[in-house]
Amino acid sequence: AVMERAHHGGGWLLSGIICINILILGCALVSGSAFNSVAITAVHRQIFVIVLLLLTMLWMLFYTVFTFRKDQAVLFKDSHAGPVWLRAGLLLFGLLSFLMDIFKIATYVGYLHCDSAVKVAFPVVQAVFLLIQTYFLWIHAKDCVQLHTNFTRCGLTLTLSTNLVVWMAAVTEESIHQTEIPDLNVSVSHKMYRASYGDKKCKCSHSACGTFKEAFYYLYPFNIEYSLFAAAMAYVMWKNVGRLVEDHSHHNVKFHPKDVCLGPLTGILLVVAGLVTFIVYEIYILKEGEEKTNKALLIHFIMNIVIVSMMSLSTIIGCIIYRLDHREHVSEKNPTRSLDVGLLVGASMGQFIISYFTIVAVVATGARGYLNALNLSWAILTVLQLGLQNYFIIEGLHREPFHVMQEAALHTNAHAFQEHAEMNPVVERNKSIYILTSSSHKLSLKRRVLKEVCAFLLLANIILWIMPAFGARPQFDHSIEIQFYKFTMWAAIVNIGLPFGIFYRMHSVASLFEVYLIS
Amino acid sequence: AVMERAHHGGGWLLSGIICINILILGCALVSGSAFNSVAITAVHRQIFVIVLLLLTMLWMLFYTVFTFRKDQAVLFKDSHAGPVWLRAGLLLFGLLSFLMDIFKIATYVGYLHCDSAVKVAFPVVQAVFLLIQTYFLWIHAKDCVQLHTNFTRCGLTLTLSTNLVVWMAAVTEESIHQTEIPDLNVSVSHKMYRASYGDKKCKCSHSACGTFKEAFYYLYPFNIEYSLFAAAMAYVMWKNVGRLVEDHSHHNVKFHPKDVCLGPLTGILLVVAGLVTFIVYEIYILKEGEEKTNKALLIHFIMNIVIVSMMSLSTIIGCIIYRLDHREHVSEKNPTRSLDVGLLVGASMGQFIISYFTIVAVVATGARGYLNALNLSWAILTVLQLGLQNYFIIEGLHREPFHVMQEAALHTNAHAFQEHAEMNPVVERNKSIYILTSSSHKLSLKRRVLKEVCAFLLLANIILWIMPAFGARPQFDHSIEIQFYKFTMWAAIVNIGLPFGIFYRMHSVASLFEVYLIS
Repeated sequence: AVMERAHHGGGWLLSGIICINILILGCALVSGSAFNSVAITAVHRQIFVIVLLLLTMLWMLFYTVFTFRKDQAVLFKDSHAGPVWLRAGLLLFGLLSFLMDIFKIATYVGYLHCDSAVKVAFPVVQAVFLLIQTYFLWIHAKDCVQLHTNFTRCGLTLTLSTNLVVWMAAVTEESIHQTEIPDLNVSVSHKMYRASYGDKKCKCSHSACGTFKEAFYYLYPFNIEYSLFAAAMAYVMWKNVGRLVEDHSHHNVKFHPKDVCLGPLTGILLVVAGLVTFIVYEIYILKEGEEKTNKALLIHFIMNIVIVSMMSLSTIIGCIIYRLDHREHVSEKNPTRSLDVGLLVGASMGQFIISYFTIVAVVATGARGYLNALNLSWAILTVLQLGLQNYFIIEGLHREPFHVMQEAALHTNAHAFQEHAEMNPVVERNKSIYILTSSSHKLSLKRRVLKEVCAFLLLANIILWIMPAFGARPQFDHSIEIQFYKFTMWAAIVNIGLPFGIFYRMHSVASLFEVYLIS
Repeated sequence: AVMERAHHGGGWLLSGIICINILILGCALVSGSAFNSVAITAVHRQIFVIVLLLLTMLWMLFYTVFTFRKDQAVLFKDSHAGPVWLRAGLLLFGLLSFLMDIFKIATYVGYLHCDSAVKVAFPVVQAVFLLIQTYFLWIHAKDCVQLHTNFTRCGLTLTLSTNLVVWMAAVTEESIHQTEIPDLNVSVSHKMYRASYGDKKCKCSHSACGTFKEAFYYLYPFNIEYSLFAAAMAYVMWKNVGRLVEDHSHHNVKFHPKDVCLGPLTGILLVVAGLVTFIVYEIYILKEGEEKTNKALLIHFIMNIVIVSMMSLSTIIGCIIYRLDHREHVSEKNPTRSLDVGLLVGASMGQFIISYFTIVAVVATGARGYLNALNLSWAILTVLQLGLQNYFIIEGLHREPFHVMQEAALHTNAHAFQEHAEMNPVVERNKSIYILTSSSHKLSLKRRVLKEVCAFLLLANIILWIMPAFGARPQFDHSIEIQFYKFTMWAAIVNIGLPFGIFYRMHSVASLFEVYLIS
């Protein structure tokens, strides 16, 4: 269904070179400003990012005004690109990032008399950028641009690399901020170190500074997520430039929620239980005291272990059914699917890394106690679950959809029916019709189990998404990894890995829904 | 020419999951042992690597004894895989790594009375592994395995991840070792900190320890290179499992060295000049004293700037010719070429990163003095050269070979000739023959310039390969980056980036030779 994209002009090559250069320069600047406080400061980095943001906005304006307006600029739309979950996520995280920028402006206005004005200018530019980019990606995510392809490619890689540089900067800032704890004693509470942010010599001129700071601290992870989402969408658009998509109608698969019940039911129960324990966990963590923290961790670990083991079990059942199932694999090439699989596997790396680092830390220190044992089992089960789930989703996406199979079967049946019609007309006919109607209205056992598994995994992924996305950080409440890897390194690992883990969960939900439909 | 690889069994998926797990576990262990000296030591890491090495050797044995012996196991050979430069490089670096292991064994035998026996066992196992793996890859690099595909895939990813874990461990060890300088004063000589390696409490029982240590220190970079080469070859083999290659004869392009002269001549002059300055640089660096070091750096920087600017200029000429040239782009899909391009671009990242970090450091500190200016210009020109060269090579590989074009033209001409033969037979015929003979025996100006550019770039890449591969490390002889990024970070960047840079240069040489042939 997809033709090879035209290859002339070499714009894709030039755009790739631009992307690499911006990214590596950004990387050098960010690490320079993180590890060296004398020559390069946050201000230099912010000026660089402001320039990138302005350039990207200029290009987006150019695209909407000139390229998009022309006839033949966008002849095709890729129906797979920019799915609704991605755009909704972008909007949600965009809004929260916008809020963060407002809080930032309010905070740094208070420091204007003794700190650089760039610190106010940066969130202002970023807020405008958020509005423009969210609008742009919302409208244009599905475009397969045919005009000015070289320039568009360069613009899109500029967008991609700008978002990744913002992401790098945010991750670094978040990690550095977390390490600004007065002492590395772990019993120190969230509140204590959150308050100590930024007030060294320069004092804030208005009283609400502390509140604003605490507010924008909470909103940082959403900005990190937003950048990742926007980068993913820009990448898909870049891949689609110049592509000629046959406008093949979406498989009209209807969603029959009645087909399944056990999976969704247990899934919803799990989500509710997860939400309850999550709220309890957050309340306990905010109350100080080691005993409370330990209780909170105990609840959180047990809940997560339950969720992850149930998921692993059901995925194993799903994989067994794949082995028994004789559906054909799709052999047709599909770039969107390859990209989806790539993003899925790539994003799962984040959680993989965190889990393995935990395993090594706990095993190496030979830590005793029920909390460490629970932490270790959680990490091992997560690794298992991630591997199984990746396998299940990728296998599922590569199978021939059931309804296509059915059509094929119908044709064969009709053919067979015609051949044998002369022999024993009445009996044969009744039987055949019976088979056809039964198979199209009632699901076979295998299909049903697959759908149950998908529905359950989908809901379980939602609760595993909610917990870290809205602030659960057991990685910092528990001391063993911090002591083992030192705080800086562990903060870097968690701050890079966890946003990818969150992205992975959302992506899994979308992919599982697709697998559900074609099963 | 290449059929889509069969997709059933999901062995490629399983092997991918195995690879990811080994890599991330390895990563966690290596960073654990690097940053935490209490719970995880080098011994734990070495035990892990020993297990991996033994497993890989077992699989290789299984492959040679069971899979390869069967009929139909290897029906096809990928003529593009495992090119001669890669295998020759593997052999060379393998030999030097083998030497390193022997020196290591000799050294750690002297510590046996007070240090772990694993430190002797590890080089022993590694030496055996080097022999077996080099033999295995030399013989089997071109195989497209058709039997036991799932098992073979898993075995190959095991090989791949083992090599990458060895690579990570070697890079870390090298970086840590370099940071064990008594003080971070940069005027400290190579010799001084090379001698201080490892002798803290445990004293060596034989007298040759110091010499052996110094020897295996010099050989470390070759081991890092060896692992990268082996990993690249294992990856290509993994990609080729189950592939059905049509045994299309190699384009019988002959290599006419007489076609070109200016390019090779300047190239050879450059190589000779580079070698001379390289030797002078090494002699000056080994003599102590800041003045000598500065003189050495001055020579090295100027030579590199000359090489890189000449390369950039000639690449620009080549790119202009591509714009003027109306050869078709190859539209056919070619996995080997995609892989080649991927490896080329990926490997160039290493040098890109080093150069950009240098630029940021020099610009940010606003360092004055001719050495800093030269360092900065070298870095900027290198970035330029890398971008241009990547563009040139990728464009060149994607063009239709000239001889194919000629055949097409011949056909068209013959056709036109037949059509018009009746009209004015004699004149037409003579003209046509004249055109044909002239175009096939003498090169057109465009083709000739392209070939000159390729030949020159090829030789220039060779000298840029020789200098870092045989020990030029101006990155550590010059103080600015070390002061800016702190020694640990800069050592990590250089030790990760430079081996990729060396790989990139070798890979470029091979690709440029291909471009030369099809131009």
